Amino acid sequence: MIIIGIDPGSRYCGYGLLEMENRRVIAAGCETIDVSRQPSLGDRLKALYDSILQVICEYSPEVAAVESMFFHRQIRSIFTLGQARGVILLALAKEGIPLVEYSPREIKKSVVGNGNATKQQVRYMINQLYSLQNKPHHDDAYDALAIATCHFNRMKWAK
Amino acid sequence: MIIIGIDPGSRYCGYGLLEMENRRVIAAGCETIDVSRQPSLGDRLKALYDSILQVICEYSPEVAAVESMFFHRQIRSIFTLGQARGVILLALAKEGIPLVEYSPREIKKSVVGNGNATKQQVRYMINQLYSLQNKPHHDDAYDALAIATCHFNRMKWAK
Repeated sequence: MIIIGIDPGSRYCGYGLLEMENRRVIAAGCETIDVSRQPSLGDRLKALYDSILQVICEYSPEVAAVESMFFHRQIRSIFTLGQARGVILLALAKEGIPLVEYSPREIKKSVVGNGNATKQQVRYMINQLYSLQNKPHHDDAYDALAIATCHFNRMKWAK
Repeated sequence: MIIIGIDPGSRYCGYGLLEMENRRVIAAGCETIDVSRQPSLGDRLKALYDSILQVICEYSPEVAAVESMFFHRQIRSIFTLGQARGVILLALAKEGIPLVEYSPREIKKSVVGNGNATKQQVRYMINQLYSLQNKPHHDDAYDALAIATCHFNRMKWAK
């Protein structure tokens, strides 16, 4: 079974993949979709949609984990982020992949053990947990794998 | 030439169509896409995307006018609205339809003559301007036709 974690953004969108078997992770990876060079917001959303569909088709994840809404950013960022998230949710709905949501706090608590952990701590812990062949440069990729890890932890302890 | 105005929403999305010839409107109409009965946000976004694509394919608008971001709503509404707007912008980008944006103030000023006009005033003025065959029940439909009208007015006076 494969879990995909997605950290949406209108310029950089992270995704992380976890393959599990008998409640153990057997493969992990993460990457960033970079649409920052597209000329307009419409083009960025189109490139993001096409790229995430391609990832879904390549790996056929059984479930997708995405960060739930959060409140601490600027209103403009929330609006922009919402647009990117809409496109991601559309791609998942089109492919019939169920969605689970976790708050940033739940994710950090699950991965680092501290709901207020920094991005550096998340990155460090992800590198400790998995021996990633490609080490992405963007935090979004690590955050996405952290979201997938949070769901994996939840499933591992579920009956 | 056909202008489409769109007022995105995650439950109700208005669209208005204006056909113009020689700087005069020769046909006008507006309608609401109702996706409120879909079971999840993903399903609502999917239904919205499919419906707006269908409208675009049926009428082949040359340009789309959409309200720009605004600040006065609740953060949760902005986030939800952003997700619906992302899906609309994706559909427009997929079909290669250029986008123009107007602020709520510009739209009301252009249609009613007052940037602080109420929804009732907008509806009244749209009914005065056009003899609509279908009178929609939702404000979203009138708002969408007001957005298209704002762009029509802008084009009418452009060189």
